Amino acid sequence: MQSGNRTRLHLNEVATRDGFQMEGRFIPTDDKVALIDRLSGLGYAKIEVTSFTSPKAIPALADGEAVMQRIRREPGVVYTALIPNQRGAERALEARVDEFNLVMSCSETHNLTNLRTTREQSFAQLAEVVAVAKAATVPVNVSLSCVFGCPMEGEVPVETVMGWIDRFAALGVQGITLCDTTGMAYPTQVQTLCSEAIARQPALQFTAHFHNTRAMGAVNTVAAIEAGIRRFDMSLGGIGGCPYAPGASGNVSTEDIVHMLDCMGYDTGIDVQSLIDAAGVLEALVQHPLPAQVSRAGVRLKRHLPPLDFDHIAARAHQRAGGLGAVPGNS
Amino acid sequence: MQSGNRTRLHLNEVATRDGFQMEGRFIPTDDKVALIDRLSGLGYAKIEVTSFTSPKAIPALADGEAVMQRIRREPGVVYTALIPNQRGAERALEARVDEFNLVMSCSETHNLTNLRTTREQSFAQLAEVVAVAKAATVPVNVSLSCVFGCPMEGEVPVETVMGWIDRFAALGVQGITLCDTTGMAYPTQVQTLCSEAIARQPALQFTAHFHNTRAMGAVNTVAAIEAGIRRFDMSLGGIGGCPYAPGASGNVSTEDIVHMLDCMGYDTGIDVQSLIDAAGVLEALVQHPLPAQVSRAGVRLKRHLPPLDFDHIAARAHQRAGGLGAVPGNS
Repeated sequence: MQSGNRTRLHLNEVATRDGFQMEGRFIPTDDKVALIDRLSGLGYAKIEVTSFTSPKAIPALADGEAVMQRIRREPGVVYTALIPNQRGAERALEARVDEFNLVMSCSETHNLTNLRTTREQSFAQLAEVVAVAKAATVPVNVSLSCVFGCPMEGEVPVETVMGWIDRFAALGVQGITLCDTTGMAYPTQVQTLCSEAIARQPALQFTAHFHNTRAMGAVNTVAAIEAGIRRFDMSLGGIGGCPYAPGASGNVSTEDIVHMLDCMGYDTGIDVQSLIDAAGVLEALVQHPLPAQVSRAGVRLKRHLPPLDFDHIAARAHQRAGGLGAVPGNS
Repeated sequence: MQSGNRTRLHLNEVATRDGFQMEGRFIPTDDKVALIDRLSGLGYAKIEVTSFTSPKAIPALADGEAVMQRIRREPGVVYTALIPNQRGAERALEARVDEFNLVMSCSETHNLTNLRTTREQSFAQLAEVVAVAKAATVPVNVSLSCVFGCPMEGEVPVETVMGWIDRFAALGVQGITLCDTTGMAYPTQVQTLCSEAIARQPALQFTAHFHNTRAMGAVNTVAAIEAGIRRFDMSLGGIGGCPYAPGASGNVSTEDIVHMLDCMGYDTGIDVQSLIDAAGVLEALVQHPLPAQVSRAGVRLKRHLPPLDFDHIAARAHQRAGGLGAVPGNS
């Protein structure tokens, strides 16, 4: 496994959309704004702020307009939102969203289950959104669900995924996010599929979106980097992304992945301790323990104190050591 | 990331020693024996059955003799135990342990804290154990703690680790386990250190032992394989190994890692579903949720049923689809 050698990676924080959408408790607008303002200063490339879905469908994000209006806009950060249809696109333009994120699934069964439309219907609907965005010169990213498998259909053929990438490329979108919606991706698959996508549409900006459902979130991230992916969705604290059980993992956690990438020598532009601090704020908002691990354990070089009686233990050991040639010391 | 290409890996199950040692509840001897007998048939290279430590020091494993005596010995499986000193070695020989596992730390502070002796004292004590093993022609493995860092000292110099490997090699031990005792290892470090260890002592059998404390257990495993390591410690359900908080991760979980290695095309010799089934038995014994994730989520191709009203959803979508050229179907 190669050193990151300061390769620059670009992170998209999704906790405030993908995460909050799944929370039982409505996070007050003031708290959303304060958290996003805090995140804005940390070095993200993008923040997915909210969703312009029907407030009835996703009440957790019913305050999309208010949040967009009240957040501080940090220069250089792209503030995106999820846009399901033309009506959402109009609301998002009004709210001055920097980039539209569109969603559909590569699996027919998943698309019907999740969006209640066939994939062709979704595509037609999203083509209208792309037209609105183009007229307003707003860039569009499409998040393709179930790229690495569908929990109901099983394997999703690579050709199916490539077909949808081609069709959105032909519509003129700027980016595609390859989403591992239920944590089915594995490293060698990630490497193959990401390489093929980049080779097929080199002009598109590809992002990878992994879940840690089966403990492979970190290794899949490394596999995607090795394949040439430089942009990643992550969720502070690991919230959101359909965990199977309380405490189980959905989205990969920003602090866990940034911590690993730091150790490996990649440049994420983000200080991991500032993420751990922000995760503390987030945990207070969602009022349940976060799945993220580095927030709990601390960074790898966080020093723990020896036990209170350490000097006594050491003195006793050294008393015994006479005949054994013990060399106290740290190395 | 390369396909495993059916490369054979050899797994050492540590749940019944490293795991049970940390449990609040004493696991009855009958249950220990039944679990080990179940594991014996699954394809492990080794099972670390118990510890021949003082029953006062580790009451959870006070029944080491009884467990060793009563388990079924599957041909081809090596039944190991942790041996702290000469007295333990004698008990282990009496109990017909196949291989001794010795432990000391590469960090002076950690060794004093954990074993209450200096590293030199530990080495001298373990040299006596090696002599007992040699006289009885029992192979010896040494588990070196804090190889990838110490929670109290911070970085542990690679030269310190290599120095202890050399000294145990000179004593004539057969194997060394490189232990990431508190989850400080990261992939590029794993790659470098494991490669160096193998190059330095090519005749030794090296094993890697990772914790998932900072979500890097799986990626570190892949890094170690890339460096040439073929033997791994794992713990069913991910129990043991000093998790920082309830539900937090200590040892990497056997089922999570075997699931990933399966997906990647490695040959672990173990069927992952049999591990998930065994983890169910284990969870009932320890009476708390296991940190392992694949036991909760199931294998990646486990099919979930669509929602009960799926046919209705699909029919309604297809009714609307007329003008949109929808093509129902799976690909």
